[in-house]
Amino acid sequence: MKTVRWTSGDKPGLALHDEAMPNPGPHEVVVRVHAASLNFRDQAILDGAYGGPTKPNGVPLSDGAGEVIAIGRSVSRAKVGDRVSASCCQHWIGGPNRPEYHADSLGMTTDGWLAETILLHENAIVHLPDYISYAEAASLPCAAVTAWTGLNLSSPLQAGETVLVQGTGGVALFSLQVAKMFGAKVYAITSSDEKAERLKALGAAAVVNYRSHPAWDQEILTLTDGRGVDKTIDIAGEKTIVQSAAATRNGGDISLVGFTSGFGGGLPPIDILAKSLHVAGTSIGSRATFEALLRAMALHEMHPVLDQVFPFADYEAAYQRLKSGNHVGKVVIEGVPAR
Amino acid sequence: MKTVRWTSGDKPGLALHDEAMPNPGPHEVVVRVHAASLNFRDQAILDGAYGGPTKPNGVPLSDGAGEVIAIGRSVSRAKVGDRVSASCCQHWIGGPNRPEYHADSLGMTTDGWLAETILLHENAIVHLPDYISYAEAASLPCAAVTAWTGLNLSSPLQAGETVLVQGTGGVALFSLQVAKMFGAKVYAITSSDEKAERLKALGAAAVVNYRSHPAWDQEILTLTDGRGVDKTIDIAGEKTIVQSAAATRNGGDISLVGFTSGFGGGLPPIDILAKSLHVAGTSIGSRATFEALLRAMALHEMHPVLDQVFPFADYEAAYQRLKSGNHVGKVVIEGVPAR
Amino acid sequence: MKTVRWTSGDKPGLALHDEAMPNPGPHEVVVRVHAASLNFRDQAILDGAYGGPTKPNGVPLSDGAGEVIAIGRSVSRAKVGDRVSASCCQHWIGGPNRPEYHADSLGMTTDGWLAETILLHENAIVHLPDYISYAEAASLPCAAVTAWTGLNLSSPLQAGETVLVQGTGGVALFSLQVAKMFGAKVYAITSSDEKAERLKALGAAAVVNYRSHPAWDQEILTLTDGRGVDKTIDIAGEKTIVQSAAATRNGGDISLVGFTSGFGGGLPPIDILAKSLHVAGTSIGSRATFEALLRAMALHEMHPVLDQVFPFADYEAAYQRLKSGNHVGKVVIEGVPAR
Amino acid sequence: MKTVRWTSGDKPGLALHDEAMPNPGPHEVVVRVHAASLNFRDQAILDGAYGGPTKPNGVPLSDGAGEVIAIGRSVSRAKVGDRVSASCCQHWIGGPNRPEYHADSLGMTTDGWLAETILLHENAIVHLPDYISYAEAASLPCAAVTAWTGLNLSSPLQAGETVLVQGTGGVALFSLQVAKMFGAKVYAITSSDEKAERLKALGAAAVVNYRSHPAWDQEILTLTDGRGVDKTIDIAGEKTIVQSAAATRNGGDISLVGFTSGFGGGLPPIDILAKSLHVAGTSIGSRATFEALLRAMALHEMHPVLDQVFPFADYEAAYQRLKSGNHVGKVVIEGVPAR
Repeated sequence: MKTVRWTSGDKPGLALHDEAMPNPGPHEVVVRVHAASLNFRDQAILDGAYGGPTKPNGVPLSDGAGEVIAIGRSVSRAKVGDRVSASCCQHWIGGPNRPEYHADSLGMTTDGWLAETILLHENAIVHLPDYISYAEAASLPCAAVTAWTGLNLSSPLQAGETVLVQGTGGVALFSLQVAKMFGAKVYAITSSDEKAERLKALGAAAVVNYRSHPAWDQEILTLTDGRGVDKTIDIAGEKTIVQSAAATRNGGDISLVGFTSGFGGGLPPIDILAKSLHVAGTSIGSRATFEALLRAMALHEMHPVLDQVFPFADYEAAYQRLKSGNHVGKVVIEGVPAR
Repeated sequence: MKTVRWTSGDKPGLALHDEAMPNPGPHEVVVRVHAASLNFRDQAILDGAYGGPTKPNGVPLSDGAGEVIAIGRSVSRAKVGDRVSASCCQHWIGGPNRPEYHADSLGMTTDGWLAETILLHENAIVHLPDYISYAEAASLPCAAVTAWTGLNLSSPLQAGETVLVQGTGGVALFSLQVAKMFGAKVYAITSSDEKAERLKALGAAAVVNYRSHPAWDQEILTLTDGRGVDKTIDIAGEKTIVQSAAATRNGGDISLVGFTSGFGGGLPPIDILAKSLHVAGTSIGSRATFEALLRAMALHEMHPVLDQVFPFADYEAAYQRLKSGNHVGKVVIEGVPAR
Repeated sequence: MKTVRWTSGDKPGLALHDEAMPNPGPHEVVVRVHAASLNFRDQAILDGAYGGPTKPNGVPLSDGAGEVIAIGRSVSRAKVGDRVSASCCQHWIGGPNRPEYHADSLGMTTDGWLAETILLHENAIVHLPDYISYAEAASLPCAAVTAWTGLNLSSPLQAGETVLVQGTGGVALFSLQVAKMFGAKVYAITSSDEKAERLKALGAAAVVNYRSHPAWDQEILTLTDGRGVDKTIDIAGEKTIVQSAAATRNGGDISLVGFTSGFGGGLPPIDILAKSLHVAGTSIGSRATFEALLRAMALHEMHPVLDQVFPFADYEAAYQRLKSGNHVGKVVIEGVPAR
Repeated sequence: MKTVRWTSGDKPGLALHDEAMPNPGPHEVVVRVHAASLNFRDQAILDGAYGGPTKPNGVPLSDGAGEVIAIGRSVSRAKVGDRVSASCCQHWIGGPNRPEYHADSLGMTTDGWLAETILLHENAIVHLPDYISYAEAASLPCAAVTAWTGLNLSSPLQAGETVLVQGTGGVALFSLQVAKMFGAKVYAITSSDEKAERLKALGAAAVVNYRSHPAWDQEILTLTDGRGVDKTIDIAGEKTIVQSAAATRNGGDISLVGFTSGFGGGLPPIDILAKSLHVAGTSIGSRATFEALLRAMALHEMHPVLDQVFPFADYEAAYQRLKSGNHVGKVVIEGVPAR
């Protein structure tokens, strides 16, 4: 079967291999991959800019979806023919994050989805609702689960609360869409008026163009009658965090979900103290969170925003698309075509 | 000014008085009452069936809305002309319930809204959004705040969760409407097919007629693929609690909000233990909860369901309407007409 | 190796077998059992009075401790020679209870500790602090973890809070000891003055003899200046729950942890509603809870109370001791002696 | 009566006045001040370095204790002769912080304790346990309540958890003492070996001298087997925050409680994200927190550490003592002597 693996080195490339089909152990499942999707960190690994551990010569991509084609003898959570996806950290079933979960993380410390099939522990399996396509489902495990986690990180999101999201990447759009399902009011910042229109079409109450309004935190304060938003989903880190704090209300939450603008910068502790902020870092989420997400999506028939779907053979082009920063929503790669 | 007060005795009647207008103390506000509304416990007081403390010869009704017509010299939270309502427990600003809050509870231990004006401490004041009428706002302080509290009592309500509500009284309908704002899926039980249609029109996903289906808990299990609902808002107490537990999922929540079917009955502890249920009793809610409710309502332009609006002079008829049990939604009494 | 298994039937007996040593799968560990302990439900299974699922002809006992003697090729959480115990639900690593965890529950739905060795998934393993013996450690997985869970079920236990425990069984004594580690004040009820002395020696602030004081709830109210305790750990269910509610403060918590007095009885919903109680059922706890417990125990050098330690050959006598109800603390069975 | 008030200006001085005794309004209480205490922010106000709002020519000091000498006609929570202290934010009875509470904050936006008597709203009153002196009680309202709040800010403190405190100021010592009451293990950093001995005598498990060990975060990691502490109470802000994050475990909490080293500095967001930290700012606490503290203190007979007690006439010297930074524990000022 076709499998893409990282080459060796600090800035690994991608190499296509032909390998034997895996056999499932007692609690394992083999899934025919129908779609996989990219996240910012997948490119960061290639750039040598990702700080976390990765498996040498591992198979990339934490996110995908497909059909179960074989199961181990003790498997109880899935059967052949099931439409499934998987929680990134295979043994993180519920509850808060623990470092140990990341020792078995798909597409990072364990082989991921950029292959014809993937071998999964049944603890990781989630079942897909009928209404969603494989390409859509493949966009969820990291970005959409992170969005749900981030929106509920320091306190649960409530109907009527205000949320600020940043940009049009995967986590930003999912944060907008998930916040809308919870009955919240969403503000966004973005780099162009075209993207602003897309965000409004998805339900943003107001969008600030941060290029034409570099003091975007003041715009958010104005939009919220000087109060600031209840929750900010901070995606860029270095270049946004100080303004994120300024745009958040006294006692509000900032959930850090990304580092797209760099590893530097710094939030003065007095900014946190003076406004009694809650600033916390996400780390994807549990299978229970993924299941809660899927259930809410099915009820609301929420469809992920897909930027572009590439054939398997064009996986390098998919990475390029993500690297360009021009995408709106998720970049998806289809599975290996049936022969 | 016209004021209705309880007469003396275990089963007090209602008597109309003509009294002097109140003068506000430093942190007090005088509000011209434009509407007040009834709750089940208001009738229970007249029937001698309410167990809690009440002020001898006090003014009934915990719920109302009106316009500020005078303020004390130190008031900072309101000004003359403001459209306001009030939190039932005047000093319960935020956080969990404490018994002390009920020592200053409108229409119970302190004079309430069934009068031409009401004297309020500024700690109790909430400001009304423009879109809502006084009659609608008057329906909120006890029933709608209780609904919000009940839905978030043992765990926060999340988008996609399932909720069971019972009947078509005030708390039931508000629970349905608030749950919908949170993005939840709502099931209901009721006594007639006509009421079932009303509930569906308000957004219930499915409604079980408990007269034609006395084993309504089994119907709810069937509707939820045998899983049971995440949260049940139990309103009747004695006659519903055992089936409520049966209809709730393993690990789910039951919030007790009423006692409309009596003070007896009993839930066997094994029913709670075997399914790891969380069963808890509400006690209205704080001003912070009321404000959160109003904010969500304004965003979603949610309108309370009013059963009937009575002129002030017909306040006895309003009580009769509630007592009949035929109401769907809230029974409201208008303020004393301007002369 | 020697293994005890349930015989078939609704009221299974216990039969000794000689079986082959197990071989560990990739993520499995073989542990030489040095001690196991009994819980109330273990006897209930033999009496046909346990409602939950059990494995036909399975190996009893959810609780034990021992030394790792073999590991599978992919095991990272343990090595040969480690002193370990295990979380009852092997894949419940953290977070709230989920029914699925109980499909792989030691000594219930999976083979347990009443054998010469036990085969464990590495997800279940906890490491023992040096200060504790195998017999002591064997007493913890169900009863002590349940105590920790129960004390923190509806709200976290805080220093200075008051806790009520019932009897001198395993969960009761652990609840007392764990509550003391959290800096709480503990009241207890028991059936004799001798047992009362034992409870006081373990740190109880006051103990009520419920035989000489059948209205023990009133005694608890008197001891708490009429306020009631913050948290009650209800162990008997049927015969205690109504008085437990009476002895608990307005807004307080009741955690149900047992059913030692029967499956009937009932708590009137008005009792919960009128005092805004939080009543919830425990279900043991996660490995994270077990690890937190062990860490606190090591810091405080807390020693479990062992009633009696039986040699392996006398396992029937150990069951008899538990059934007698005369025990104070945990009944332990040693491992099969080395040959 | 003697009253000290701020003089006008950005860097106000202190001036002694002779004023009339206050008369209590309906819900007010007059307290004869027996002791008051200083916090870092009290000196920051004189230095023009405090950022928050203060009352022009107000009476300083948020912390004090005394005896009730007069009550208003509607007061139910206190009587003449009661030994009391008060919650800093008078109407913050329970629940999370809200900015509105700080509009009525003793010694900040409302007249405080540096006077012969103080006028309090009954909502603010806490009753003192018998075992504690007025001087000791006067040390609690800001620093000890902040310590309790900080230890439970992002998650509740549990027995066996590890806590890091910094220095020997009021909040640091109270954090140590409160954490010990909860059954936690406390590490500390300080500037001298003498202070380290004081900290150990109060129960610190280990203390790092940050002058001789500037890489104190590495020392803390070593002391915790490389894991880091569960919770850090960060007191200095600018100069400690980066190392505080390094010394805290993955998923752990940092509670910001002070700004003693300045308003600058900055924590890179990647430090929060990579370790999934929870960083939050305290803001004193509610009366409910103060009452919980007093109850725990009474149970454990915990005594605050008083650095020095100054006569009322020497209030300037008390400020000097605090400014010196040489204090260990709280600086207290006695009430005006009886004539």
